Amino acid sequence: MEKRHNYHMTPGEFRAAGNAAVEWVARYLEEVESYPVLSQVEPGDVRSGLPAHPPQIGEPFEAMLRDLDDIIMPGITHWQSPNFFAYFNANASGPSILGELISAGLGSQGMLWATSPAATELETHVMDWLVELLDLPEVFLSTGSGGGVIQDTASSSTLVAILAARERATEFTTNDTGNLGNLTAYTSGQAHSSVEKAIRIAGIGAANLRLVDVDEEYAMQPEHLERLILEDIAAGKTPAVVVATIGTTSSTAIDPVRRIGEIARKYGTWFHVDAALAGSAAVLPEMRWINDGVEFADSYVVNPHKWLFTNLDFSALFLADRASLIKTLSVLPEYLRNEATESGAVIDYRDWQIGLGRRFRALKLWFVLRHYGVEGLQHHVGEHLRLARLFSGWVEDHPDFEPAAPVTVNLVCFRHVGGDEVNQRIVDTVNASGEAFFTHTKLDGRLTLRMAIGQTYTEERHVRRAWDLIVNAAP
Amino acid sequence: MEKRHNYHMTPGEFRAAGNAAVEWVARYLEEVESYPVLSQVEPGDVRSGLPAHPPQIGEPFEAMLRDLDDIIMPGITHWQSPNFFAYFNANASGPSILGELISAGLGSQGMLWATSPAATELETHVMDWLVELLDLPEVFLSTGSGGGVIQDTASSSTLVAILAARERATEFTTNDTGNLGNLTAYTSGQAHSSVEKAIRIAGIGAANLRLVDVDEEYAMQPEHLERLILEDIAAGKTPAVVVATIGTTSSTAIDPVRRIGEIARKYGTWFHVDAALAGSAAVLPEMRWINDGVEFADSYVVNPHKWLFTNLDFSALFLADRASLIKTLSVLPEYLRNEATESGAVIDYRDWQIGLGRRFRALKLWFVLRHYGVEGLQHHVGEHLRLARLFSGWVEDHPDFEPAAPVTVNLVCFRHVGGDEVNQRIVDTVNASGEAFFTHTKLDGRLTLRMAIGQTYTEERHVRRAWDLIVNAAP
Repeated sequence: MEKRHNYHMTPGEFRAAGNAAVEWVARYLEEVESYPVLSQVEPGDVRSGLPAHPPQIGEPFEAMLRDLDDIIMPGITHWQSPNFFAYFNANASGPSILGELISAGLGSQGMLWATSPAATELETHVMDWLVELLDLPEVFLSTGSGGGVIQDTASSSTLVAILAARERATEFTTNDTGNLGNLTAYTSGQAHSSVEKAIRIAGIGAANLRLVDVDEEYAMQPEHLERLILEDIAAGKTPAVVVATIGTTSSTAIDPVRRIGEIARKYGTWFHVDAALAGSAAVLPEMRWINDGVEFADSYVVNPHKWLFTNLDFSALFLADRASLIKTLSVLPEYLRNEATESGAVIDYRDWQIGLGRRFRALKLWFVLRHYGVEGLQHHVGEHLRLARLFSGWVEDHPDFEPAAPVTVNLVCFRHVGGDEVNQRIVDTVNASGEAFFTHTKLDGRLTLRMAIGQTYTEERHVRRAWDLIVNAAP
Repeated sequence: MEKRHNYHMTPGEFRAAGNAAVEWVARYLEEVESYPVLSQVEPGDVRSGLPAHPPQIGEPFEAMLRDLDDIIMPGITHWQSPNFFAYFNANASGPSILGELISAGLGSQGMLWATSPAATELETHVMDWLVELLDLPEVFLSTGSGGGVIQDTASSSTLVAILAARERATEFTTNDTGNLGNLTAYTSGQAHSSVEKAIRIAGIGAANLRLVDVDEEYAMQPEHLERLILEDIAAGKTPAVVVATIGTTSSTAIDPVRRIGEIARKYGTWFHVDAALAGSAAVLPEMRWINDGVEFADSYVVNPHKWLFTNLDFSALFLADRASLIKTLSVLPEYLRNEATESGAVIDYRDWQIGLGRRFRALKLWFVLRHYGVEGLQHHVGEHLRLARLFSGWVEDHPDFEPAAPVTVNLVCFRHVGGDEVNQRIVDTVNASGEAFFTHTKLDGRLTLRMAIGQTYTEERHVRRAWDLIVNAAP
């Protein structure tokens, strides 16, 4: 056989395979409701269907789509199913998927402004649009001292914020010396695990992370925060960062951001606000109370990949003073020097994140904002809020179920009155049925059921059926 | 006007828009050669074409494609152009782009095995395939104590490796105490800037990063490494990690990995190997000498998103002992507890990375490996190597140009004999022409031109024309 000179897809092959892939996704989204939401495979099932060795000779695209159906699909948990009520949602949508496709096709790498000016400028632009869309403080706009940047996840957003806090607290010396002084950090016991993870990574140490008490609604108690800060100062510590949460993971509790912000400012600590899920609710004017006091924040994170129909990954981090972040993360080797950077007239987003290379993710949010318009986003987020209130009403009205936390946005925490074992059996039964998928947490040491009502395609009928499944699974 | 109940793309609209998007990408890849490689816009040009406010009402998909052409495209630097010879390449390919599309369509989130078993198991599987494809040590296979994990960039891979090194050196206490002891780290002055960035982030401090001397070929001098380690031990320091590079960014120098690994082992330090670009060359048996001694490595990173036709992001990190990494990065809150995790029978990749959420990136490498087959990958990587040798020969044969470093893989470092100013003028002239794009570095304090010959679609004619442009730009 003659040796081939080119193994790439030809443009014709790409068109054919591309149209088949689009058709595959279109049909998937049409049929997604019919799949068991939580994959029913056992560990090892998927791998056992895959060949032990990579293929020596290339295969046609149809073979991949066939194996996708036969081997991969049984092992997929369907995050895009309207019957997905677990964790927090990770939503995709048509315009977002196509934005990701075009971004992959362009394959531009926006580590520097110079390496793809449009990738950087569209990012700056849509991040400014987000400030307007969510009515966030103007200090986060790129036109002043602040600005926004896309990160992969809220964990990364929180990590880089905490690193900037660490550096500011040590007058930007830790990066060089490795001397962390006696830094302390503060968040509530209901904060996301990424806060503790970031504190560990940054070398501050989990033992120096104070877990502030929460009230009966699981929101941080500012008085306790201030007491802890004062105790630490008296003990010779340096309070470096306070992290508040707007919408905790367990129960979407809303910390009193204004009071916390005032305390953070009083003691000169960095103030980071994690609104990863709940922040998107602020597309609606009537929900903007959740952000009250955010003008005190040094940094703020909200994830459009959770509840703004923009597929993973898209975490939006906003800074009040971008210079602190850039000073913390910038390392400039000769091979990256260029005229635009030297001029100071451009943003180089590599200095705002852990990695160097970066995808063109602004495109997908741009597509989403333009497809839905402010009106469409408000409609769908508003619907989710309405459905959560509706579900919450059913819980309240049922003699065997009770609410377990206030419904602040689109998560309903509740439990059967029969105790932990009964509740565990309910969640296991419903999830094993494949008809719906939801998860649990613990509040006050008690097993608590969580219904997160925020999947792109969730309608009232899905929520109603999930409730019927739950009721029927109860003893 | 009646209020709409649904703003989502219908399946029909998605099909039509999807086919238009595929056609857009297909035509882009057909025409990419005709674009100026380096974008010619000035700072602010792109933003000035965008509306100040997000749209109130949704717009049709055609409007986005039109603005993509009119506003975005002039600001794109074409990383997928065969005339792109800058930095290191960041390659896409047909099967990879379509893998990204399907991954976005599925929208599954693989933070835990349970949240999409197929995403986790396919990842483990293709990472094991990569070990075989590149003939890496068996200790990196998931079937033993090791395993591979996809990270976004080599910076993240190196960071988590350094974090594991930090914890191992302090008996896994720093995460909790924040006490870093007197840790020191070692790499050559030619290592990537991400090493210093990771050392800063981890709290070790750049002042504790020793830059080992390099030889006349820019490779690390193991004797100097050992001397530095001994000096630090004598001074009461704890050498925690050594980072070697297979293919440095400035000149693809290959550090003597075996000797360095022996020293790292002798003194009990973690040994991390950064083969982000050059590692892909090992698809060819005749190139596997670059990995000689990698069996001493605790961790190893190679980026298929650079030179294996898998679009950004896909950095492959391999561990010899996955337990160290997991112990370093695991935090398990109640809301993530599940039966599969408790059983210990599955991998939860969230414990192998900074973030919690994660995309289904294994799909695109799976598509690439199956489309090209081992044979196709060997052909194209082999062609790039041949073209680099060809170009290098032209440099050697030209009276006014000289090689500036050995050609180890697909990067040619060279310079005009006329000095820095002449070389700067050459790179500026060629890049301003839009006909080709390459970049510079400094070696021994002298401006050096870099031709990275590794773009997916680069053929001999492109390399030949770039050389003509360079020669013509010389005085």
